[in-house]
Amino acid sequence: MNLGIDLGGTNIVAGLVDDNCNIIKKMSVPTLAERSFEEIIKDMAHLCNRLIEEAKIDISEVKALGVGTPGAVDNKKGIVLHAGNLGWHNAPIKNELGKYFKMPINIENDANAAAYGEYIACGVDIDDFLFITLGTGVGGGIIINKKIYRGFNGAGAELGHFTLVHDGIHCSCGKAGCWEAYASVSALISQTAEAIEENPDSLMAKSYKSVGEINGRTAFDAAKAGDKAAQRVVKKYLEYVADGICSMVNIFEPEVLLIGGGISKEGDYLLKPIAEYCEKNYFCKNIRQTRLGIAELGNDAGIIGAALAGAAD
Amino acid sequence: MNLGIDLGGTNIVAGLVDDNCNIIKKMSVPTLAERSFEEIIKDMAHLCNRLIEEAKIDISEVKALGVGTPGAVDNKKGIVLHAGNLGWHNAPIKNELGKYFKMPINIENDANAAAYGEYIACGVDIDDFLFITLGTGVGGGIIINKKIYRGFNGAGAELGHFTLVHDGIHCSCGKAGCWEAYASVSALISQTAEAIEENPDSLMAKSYKSVGEINGRTAFDAAKAGDKAAQRVVKKYLEYVADGICSMVNIFEPEVLLIGGGISKEGDYLLKPIAEYCEKNYFCKNIRQTRLGIAELGNDAGIIGAALAGAAD
Repeated sequence: MNLGIDLGGTNIVAGLVDDNCNIIKKMSVPTLAERSFEEIIKDMAHLCNRLIEEAKIDISEVKALGVGTPGAVDNKKGIVLHAGNLGWHNAPIKNELGKYFKMPINIENDANAAAYGEYIACGVDIDDFLFITLGTGVGGGIIINKKIYRGFNGAGAELGHFTLVHDGIHCSCGKAGCWEAYASVSALISQTAEAIEENPDSLMAKSYKSVGEINGRTAFDAAKAGDKAAQRVVKKYLEYVADGICSMVNIFEPEVLLIGGGISKEGDYLLKPIAEYCEKNYFCKNIRQTRLGIAELGNDAGIIGAALAGAAD
Repeated sequence: MNLGIDLGGTNIVAGLVDDNCNIIKKMSVPTLAERSFEEIIKDMAHLCNRLIEEAKIDISEVKALGVGTPGAVDNKKGIVLHAGNLGWHNAPIKNELGKYFKMPINIENDANAAAYGEYIACGVDIDDFLFITLGTGVGGGIIINKKIYRGFNGAGAELGHFTLVHDGIHCSCGKAGCWEAYASVSALISQTAEAIEENPDSLMAKSYKSVGEINGRTAFDAAKAGDKAAQRVVKKYLEYVADGICSMVNIFEPEVLLIGGGISKEGDYLLKPIAEYCEKNYFCKNIRQTRLGIAELGNDAGIIGAALAGAAD
């Protein structure tokens, strides 16, 4: 059994992961990110101990502990090099956690941990794998030769921050035209808001008036109900997503590419047009193609990936 | 000593590479690509034997033979899966060459072989490395964990074919807006031609009139001589190049990224603005940065890389 921790800006979630890669119990506490690094790690350790206690297992049954954290990570040293949303710079998580637990401890970037979780859940013997999350941002992780790819400085795989639209919309990262600025849920919400303003009589606009907010489902729901303006929003949004996915496949040619994040709940409604776009636009048309799919684990991916990634090295 | 072969659509070039990674002798014959696969391989073998003879060495001194070939390659089986410009589909190069040589034989995609050659020439102990060629097309290769990254189908690392301009110029690959369609020498020539038409009194236009052709140097030369219109062409072209390089770094965070191909001869005139753009636009600003540089080997990269890549696996 392994312990996996998904450290977020809002919550710390810990889970016990059994040898079949299932979470048998999980618990969480608020991160309260404004606190000191040591206090947060202390809470993390207490959460793990409570989890072990409530699961009625002995700590000797836990083989290893893994943490998925925001930011760039030096995996060898177990240090968070830089995590803006936690205000951490050169934070020695592994050392600090080592004060509480005498077991192997592994620290990964959270998106990489989630990618590894989805890779393991795939259950197939594949070497090269990509995971893309369409959430508040666009992120993901790369598995190469069955291992997480981290880049030389632990910041590898910012898949949402290649340029899809040169001289395009300003991205939160500071660069213009990133894929994230067009394919994230936040981007979809902006695209929906714009279309609502232009189409005040559309189903989308009515839904907005009655619900009082625009979210990642507004355009998708209205499109499925036949709203032409919403269908145009979804079509264009999926073009942005598909163009980015096709680009990733041309670069990596992974055996499997899975799409996760909030939007991935749209399932085939999302996947089918993306797959059609890609088949038409892939660079390599005469050889084996990447298998595209929807990720399975949702929020558990990070915990499972964090728990198991250390064993891969 | 190893033998390296760079198989192109026009020429087959073979070189003897010594243990210091230097080419001690090279020779070439025309590919005559319209011939049968077996005839081309036969010529390749004869070329190698002549090379060994003229270099006055014994074949027992040659430890291994490597080939860099266009197309997608199954490296394990030594098969070219698909190479459009040679008309090859499932061509068993390794087997066929094995009829002539009793030594380890390794087959790589040509861009990957060139990337490996530049990686070796780097001479530094680095794990993750990117090589980008700005030539007729934009290509390159990825070295991860000191090994060539090939993708699951041998077609990995089509770095020129991610979308830089969504809905942009039609690329020869069939997709719209590829980086290659903006950052290749061919793209620069189109951009120069357009500017010449709009600026008939410019230095570029005069150079075109006197030389009779536009090439990859036309705009660069005129820009250096103070031609404002040419400076605008170069500035915009370098923005396309830099935006793509910054995108690649955000995805891979390699320790070193080298730029090769015809345009790379511009040296610092090319590199400096790219580095400035990247420093300003990188996703990760608070940690170690990728070292950008100009590749060193030119056309020899493919031979050296092909000769040595087999030893890395």
